[in-house]
Amino acid sequence: MTTRLAKLSAALRTLRVEPQGEASGLSAVALNPSPSLTYLTGLRFHLSERPVVAIFTADAPPVIVLPALEMLKVIGLPYQVQTFPYPENPAEWEGVFRQAVQSLGLDGKRIGVEPRALRLLEFHHLQAGAPEAKFPDASALVSSLRIRKDAEEIAAMRRAVHVAQKALENTLVLIKIGMSEKELAAELTVQLLRSGSQPEMPFSPIVSSGPNSANPHAAPSERKLQPGDLLVIDWGATVDGYVSDLTRTFAVGEVEAEYHKIHQIVQAANAAGRAAASPGVPCGSVDKAARAVIEQAGYGLHFTHRTGHGIGIEGHEEPYMRGDNELLLEPGMAFTVEPGIYLPGRNGVRIEDNVVITEKGAACLSDMGRELRAVG
Amino acid sequence: MTTRLAKLSAALRTLRVEPQGEASGLSAVALNPSPSLTYLTGLRFHLSERPVVAIFTADAPPVIVLPALEMLKVIGLPYQVQTFPYPENPAEWEGVFRQAVQSLGLDGKRIGVEPRALRLLEFHHLQAGAPEAKFPDASALVSSLRIRKDAEEIAAMRRAVHVAQKALENTLVLIKIGMSEKELAAELTVQLLRSGSQPEMPFSPIVSSGPNSANPHAAPSERKLQPGDLLVIDWGATVDGYVSDLTRTFAVGEVEAEYHKIHQIVQAANAAGRAAASPGVPCGSVDKAARAVIEQAGYGLHFTHRTGHGIGIEGHEEPYMRGDNELLLEPGMAFTVEPGIYLPGRNGVRIEDNVVITEKGAACLSDMGRELRAVG
Repeated sequence: MTTRLAKLSAALRTLRVEPQGEASGLSAVALNPSPSLTYLTGLRFHLSERPVVAIFTADAPPVIVLPALEMLKVIGLPYQVQTFPYPENPAEWEGVFRQAVQSLGLDGKRIGVEPRALRLLEFHHLQAGAPEAKFPDASALVSSLRIRKDAEEIAAMRRAVHVAQKALENTLVLIKIGMSEKELAAELTVQLLRSGSQPEMPFSPIVSSGPNSANPHAAPSERKLQPGDLLVIDWGATVDGYVSDLTRTFAVGEVEAEYHKIHQIVQAANAAGRAAASPGVPCGSVDKAARAVIEQAGYGLHFTHRTGHGIGIEGHEEPYMRGDNELLLEPGMAFTVEPGIYLPGRNGVRIEDNVVITEKGAACLSDMGRELRAVG
Repeated sequence: MTTRLAKLSAALRTLRVEPQGEASGLSAVALNPSPSLTYLTGLRFHLSERPVVAIFTADAPPVIVLPALEMLKVIGLPYQVQTFPYPENPAEWEGVFRQAVQSLGLDGKRIGVEPRALRLLEFHHLQAGAPEAKFPDASALVSSLRIRKDAEEIAAMRRAVHVAQKALENTLVLIKIGMSEKELAAELTVQLLRSGSQPEMPFSPIVSSGPNSANPHAAPSERKLQPGDLLVIDWGATVDGYVSDLTRTFAVGEVEAEYHKIHQIVQAANAAGRAAASPGVPCGSVDKAARAVIEQAGYGLHFTHRTGHGIGIEGHEEPYMRGDNELLLEPGMAFTVEPGIYLPGRNGVRIEDNVVITEKGAACLSDMGRELRAVG
């Protein structure tokens, strides 16, 4: 944590606004309970009706505004913090936020925030504490600290992949015709825990069968598995705070010929996306490589989403594998490759792996077979 | 859902701002993926880097801005919606938000939001779509729709309590001295799923032992259970979208006399809090009744949090059992009663039940014994 905090301080020293002020630059970064806060500080808080905000500056120790009853969480940290605890009565919170922000002399300055995580709840308290401050988007700065994973982070992600794969193997043998998507999802969740996932999973498993498999973001339903179904399972584990996110598609009994065909196309698209991943290559090229395979096979309109997203402490983070993303891949960047073909009202296929960029190319963390296996 | 939507429309008709405008009133409510959105529409979306916003007005069908790849979720709903899907490229999102907001003629109007749920991500898109609009806090309005549970909601909460109690009973028999808090929490999570909880639990179980039990919001650690520990387990289940949230405290082997004493005090405080709950009584009285027992026993400084919080579709919602809360209890309001005594550096006790206000008094949904049971 101390290294990560030092990196943020160093970045803020570079970005600091001179006294005369300018329209760019940042004097601080303010975070609410979020993956970035955990990344920087190791701290976890529930995202509740009680606002928690940590403010990072170039030179002072982090300032944390938090409920008094959470104070035990910030005692004994391996780095200095300055805490501003508030009591249970919400009427007193604003004054405590004002003290915190003013202790850092931030009114009128530029305080960077993460719009994807910060709620109006915390934002309004920050604003009340520094009515003349500006709150620009600091997502790119915070993301730049997180986007290249170190060896320890990659090792945790590898463990998260192995736990997920083991859990699915343990679940596949239990699948029976007539089992509902919800039952299968609950069993997979149990197996994820038994295999060593933390209870805070990146997401609840997606188990979608038959026509539901044509919906990329389906929630498990009461629908029962039937012969002839494609079965999409999109699942992941969390190990030591890092996540995995995989998808495999199965055949329930015999399925029609076109489903075999689209599965082969998606398998080829997945391989093409992984093969395109290498340092110095734009993220967009990974998307284009996978998409080209599906387009050439005539199913381009049925691949309705980007090819992948970054992965690490969060299930979705930078970098995004979107055709228009010109960001160049660098060693340590980790992301999913997950092309799909969805035939509305019929069935769908998705195959998803987790990849990390190395010095010379890319390593695939997941090694579970990608062929169309029959289950049930 | 249609009844709930109709209630919101009716409320908005009352609150509508006349053409000449005024500083109060509301023309619309805008919600991001949140428990309130699910309550009103039945819809669930991941809270991701792709903003989703639903806008409710007095007369038009709800307007939903969402990623094109989520469109299948809004097909076949039992009520009308107007959808504004956007493609994967974020550069195009702002234009789609502008169309959506302008289709309702909302620029310059007052659009209510929930600061506890809405992120700057969605807020900035709304603002870009309606630069002259104001975005007042509509939490009280939305909460007023949710705060009185109907019979069906209470039945779901009762099932969520029973599933949680069954899961804990199945776990208690597996507790052994030397088991870590994390192992115990994982086992309890498995039992919650086996007993019928949905995978989306209200929170990961808190399992805290020995000195950790003196931290009301401790996360399960690698600490192993030892004779002489108090063991606090705070857990809950989700059934049909409604949650339970319970706490019991156990003795690992023999514990010192003072721990028996504080357990008895907390048990009496829990009973006093539940007994004080009745229609027409202010929420503050529930807190005061529980707190008085602990204060009279000389441990007032060690009860560091409010006595409870509302519960329903969320683990924490209105009404809050805080001494200064003058809101009067009404039939259908549901909340926790969870006094505690925490001796820093030593051990802690908390006992939590789920209560719902009836026409004549209050019903306790949880009936698991509250005595200090020995485990291990």
